[in-house]
Amino acid sequence: MAKNKKNKVKRPRAAAPRGFRDYFGAEVLERNRMLGQITDIYQAYGFDPLETPAVETVEALGKFLPDVDRPNEGVFAWQDEDDAWMALRYDLTAPLARVYAQFRNDLPSPYRRYAVGPVWRNEKAGPGRFRQFYQCDADTVGTPTMAADAEICAMLSDTLEAVGIARGDYIVRVNNRKVLNGVMQVAGIFDPSEPSKFEAERGIVLRAIDKLDRLGPQGVRALLGEGRKDDSGDFTGGAGLADEQAEIVMGFMEAKRDSGAATCARLRELVRGSDIGLAGVQELETIAELTDAQGYGADRLVIDPSVVRGLGYYTGPVYEAELTFEILDKKGRKRQFGSVAGGGRYDDLVKRFTGQEVPATGISIGVDRLLAALREKGRLDNSSTGPVVVTVMDRDRMADYQTMVAELRNAGIRAEVYLGNPKNFGNQLKYADARNSPVAVIEGGNEKDAGVVQIKDLALGKVLAAGITSNEEWKSQPAQMEIKRSDLVAEVKKMINRAG
Amino acid sequence: MAKNKKNKVKRPRAAAPRGFRDYFGAEVLERNRMLGQITDIYQAYGFDPLETPAVETVEALGKFLPDVDRPNEGVFAWQDEDDAWMALRYDLTAPLARVYAQFRNDLPSPYRRYAVGPVWRNEKAGPGRFRQFYQCDADTVGTPTMAADAEICAMLSDTLEAVGIARGDYIVRVNNRKVLNGVMQVAGIFDPSEPSKFEAERGIVLRAIDKLDRLGPQGVRALLGEGRKDDSGDFTGGAGLADEQAEIVMGFMEAKRDSGAATCARLRELVRGSDIGLAGVQELETIAELTDAQGYGADRLVIDPSVVRGLGYYTGPVYEAELTFEILDKKGRKRQFGSVAGGGRYDDLVKRFTGQEVPATGISIGVDRLLAALREKGRLDNSSTGPVVVTVMDRDRMADYQTMVAELRNAGIRAEVYLGNPKNFGNQLKYADARNSPVAVIEGGNEKDAGVVQIKDLALGKVLAAGITSNEEWKSQPAQMEIKRSDLVAEVKKMINRAG
Repeated sequence: MAKNKKNKVKRPRAAAPRGFRDYFGAEVLERNRMLGQITDIYQAYGFDPLETPAVETVEALGKFLPDVDRPNEGVFAWQDEDDAWMALRYDLTAPLARVYAQFRNDLPSPYRRYAVGPVWRNEKAGPGRFRQFYQCDADTVGTPTMAADAEICAMLSDTLEAVGIARGDYIVRVNNRKVLNGVMQVAGIFDPSEPSKFEAERGIVLRAIDKLDRLGPQGVRALLGEGRKDDSGDFTGGAGLADEQAEIVMGFMEAKRDSGAATCARLRELVRGSDIGLAGVQELETIAELTDAQGYGADRLVIDPSVVRGLGYYTGPVYEAELTFEILDKKGRKRQFGSVAGGGRYDDLVKRFTGQEVPATGISIGVDRLLAALREKGRLDNSSTGPVVVTVMDRDRMADYQTMVAELRNAGIRAEVYLGNPKNFGNQLKYADARNSPVAVIEGGNEKDAGVVQIKDLALGKVLAAGITSNEEWKSQPAQMEIKRSDLVAEVKKMINRAG
Repeated sequence: MAKNKKNKVKRPRAAAPRGFRDYFGAEVLERNRMLGQITDIYQAYGFDPLETPAVETVEALGKFLPDVDRPNEGVFAWQDEDDAWMALRYDLTAPLARVYAQFRNDLPSPYRRYAVGPVWRNEKAGPGRFRQFYQCDADTVGTPTMAADAEICAMLSDTLEAVGIARGDYIVRVNNRKVLNGVMQVAGIFDPSEPSKFEAERGIVLRAIDKLDRLGPQGVRALLGEGRKDDSGDFTGGAGLADEQAEIVMGFMEAKRDSGAATCARLRELVRGSDIGLAGVQELETIAELTDAQGYGADRLVIDPSVVRGLGYYTGPVYEAELTFEILDKKGRKRQFGSVAGGGRYDDLVKRFTGQEVPATGISIGVDRLLAALREKGRLDNSSTGPVVVTVMDRDRMADYQTMVAELRNAGIRAEVYLGNPKNFGNQLKYADARNSPVAVIEGGNEKDAGVVQIKDLALGKVLAAGITSNEEWKSQPAQMEIKRSDLVAEVKKMINRAG
C-alpha cells in the first residue's frame, strides 16, 4: 500500500542563485560592444590590459568593504584545503594593488592598466541589484602627478561620448578629499596631528553632504546641527556643530562657481589656514588648468565640492561621472539618471603589501548602469541580428539546405537551417519569428525541380504572417518572391538591405 | 630591551592563490582576438550568446566531475547565509542545462547557443595547469537530428581555420558511444538489459583504448587481457577478457579506413547483432554523408573509432579536434600537439531538472591550449601595440605634450605622455623601451621656439639606444628626425608604417 518511494526523484531546482542572473543574446552583444568601445579608448590612451583571476586570497583583498568583520561577510569566501581563506574579488582595484606589489620590478613605471570583468558582492540582492556585475577600470600606478588625474578625467569624458552619451548629457565632477579635510580643519572637527578625533562627527557631515540632492540645503543644515526628523517622524541624530562651524561646511558645499578657476578661488578662501586644504585646492587648480588647456570645458568637466561619494580609501582628487538627463523613476517622478562612474587617487593600497607608499589614481565605470542608461535613451543599436532561416521542406535534402546556409555565410550573411522536426511547417515559421529572422528561404520539391527558391521578407511580413500554418498561405503573402536558386545570395542580400 | 612590536606589521603576501595566474597586455589582447574570431563563426552559424553567472547552486551543477563525494571537492564551493551550497561553475554545459530547463518555454526550439568565459576546477595545480581557464562552447539543444551534430563538426573545422590553424594541421575526429557499446555487447561485456553488469571491465577497456597513442596496440592488448607491467615494473591490472573478446575490441580500435563510408562499413560488420551498435553506425553514416556533401573531406573530418576521451555523459556521437603538427615536449622529443576541443551528444543533462529527455549536442574549445598552439607555431599576431610616447622635457608645459597625444589619438595612433618624474631623461627612454613604443616625441624649449619637434624611430633605434642617458646622445642617433610641429601626426604615421 505504501507508495513506491523510488519513483519520487528529488530534482534540482532550475534557477540561478539568488541575486545572480543570466544574459541572453542581444544583452550579451550590447555589453560586449560597449566594453569594446570603452577599452578602445583606454587602449588609445596607452593603457594596457590586465586580467587577474576571479579568486584572490582574503588577506590580499583586504577589508575595504564597509563594516565587515568576518572574512566571508561582504565577499564570497571559502577555505581551501590548507584552511586558507580565498574569495571572489569585490572590485578590480584590490587585485591591481596585489599585482603591482607582486610584479613592480617588471612593470613599466608609471603603469597604466585597464581591466574589464565581473566582480562579486555578497550583499542582499534586490530588484535591479545583483551580486555579480561588470566593472571596467583604468588606473595609473606609480606617479603622484596631477597630470595623471587630469588624463583620467579627460579619458572618462571621451569614453562616455564614445559609447553614445552626447555632450551635455553627462558631466564629470571633480572634488578633492584634502579640500574637504581642510574645511573640516577650519570648522574645528579635523586635527591633522590627531586624525582619529571627531571621526564620528566627520562621518555624519560626509553623509549629510552626500544627501544634498535629496534633502536640500535645509535638511543638510539640520543634520550638521542637532539632527533632523523626517516625514515619517524618524529622527536622525546630527553632528552637533555650532552655527559658525555648520556655516563653514555649508559654504563649502555651495562653493561651486561658474568656472573652475572661480570655484578654486572660493575654496582657497574657505580653507585659509589649513595646509592640507590649500594643497587640495592646488591639486584641483592643476587638474582644471590641464583639462582646460585640452578643451575640456565646463560642459564636460567641473570642479564640484559637493561630490563626496566613494571617499573611502581616496587620498586626493575624486571624480564622478553623472548622466544629467532625466528619466522617470518607479513612481513616475522625473529624476536625473545619476552616477555611472567614479574614482580618485588612492596612495595607500599598494603600501599594504610593500610598506612603501605608491601613488595611484583611477576610475571604475559601472558598465551595467551605463547600458541601462543607453537603453533608457533608446541609444543602443537594436538592429536585428537574427539569422536567415532556411526551412526544411524535404528532410532527405538536408545537405541541399546546408549548402544554402554555407553560401549565405560565405557572403557574410548570418544563416542557419531549421533543425527541429520539419513536419509542421507552421512551427518553422514560428521558429523564424522567435529568432527575429529577417528572411526565410523555402525550397520544396517543385522549386528544386524548377531551379528556384522562395524567399520571404519576415521583417515586412511579420504582422501578416501571424497564424499562418501552411506553405500555401505563406506563398500568398506579398513579401514573398520566387527567385532563381543561383541568385540566392544576391537576392537575400537585397531583401535584408531593404529591411534595414 | 624588548623590540617594539608595534613596528612589526604583518603584511599580506602579494601573490595570486596557488593555481591562479594573471594575464598581461598582449596575452589579454591575443585571447580576446581569438575569442572574437571564434564567436564570429558561432554567430554566423546562427548561435546566440548566453552569459550565465560564475556562481551556481551546487544542486544545479550536479556531480559530473569524476569521483567527488563532498560538494566542495572538484569545485570551489561555499555555503551562503541560508546554509545552501553555492559553487563556481566547472564548465559551461551544466549552466546551459539549468538555463534550458528554467527558460525552455521562452527559448527558440531548437536552441543554438554559444558561451565564452572562465571555468574553475578545484584540482591540484601544476606547471601549465591552472584552476581557472577559458572555455568557448557551442551547443544545440532540443533536437535529436544528426544534422545538428554534423553542423557542429563543420563549424568546429571552420573555427579552427578562422583562428589560424591551416587545413592539414588539424583534424576533427568523430566516434559514437553507441558503436562502442555495440562492440562491448558483441564482446559480451555489455548487456543492454542489465547495463550495470561488467561496468568495471568496460572502464578498463575504455582507459586502455584511450592509451593507444602511448602504449601502442600491444600495450592495449595486454590491458584487455591479464594486465601489463610498465617500464618501471609497476603492474596495471587488465580487464581479463578472453582472447576472442579482446580481438573484437582490438578490431574496433583499428577499424578506421580511408573513407568515412569504408570505416562505417567495417564498423557495421563489427557490431553485427547489436541494435545499439547498428544505431550508432547509422548515426556516424548520417554525419559523414552530411559533412561530405558540404565538402568537409578526410583532410578535415574523419570517423575514428579510437576516440574515446570525454565519453563521460555522452550518449551518441562524440567529437574531438586535434592539432596534428609536431612540437617538442619538455624532454625534447617530438610529439603531436594533441586535442584542443571536444564534445558530443548528451541527452540526459536537462532531464535532471525536468524529468523529460531533451536531446542536446555541442563542443567546447580549450581556448588557452589553442592559444598555446598558435604561439608555438608563431602564428599569433605579434605586431607592436606599444603607444607613441611623448617625452616631457619641460614639466611646466604638460598641456603642450597632452595636446600632442590628443592629436595623435584623434588620428587613430595610440599615444601617451610620460607621467613619471621627468628629471632623468634616460628613464623616459627606458620607459619607452619597456612600453615597446614605436616612436618617441621630444620637444624641448629650443624646439618649441623654433616650431619643431624631434621624432625618434624606436623600432629602428632600439639596439643602438641601449645605455643612452642624455638628450644630446639621443639626438645623434640616425633614426631621429627633426620635423615641423605642424607635421607631427603625418610624420609619426610615416615612421610607424616604415617600422611595420
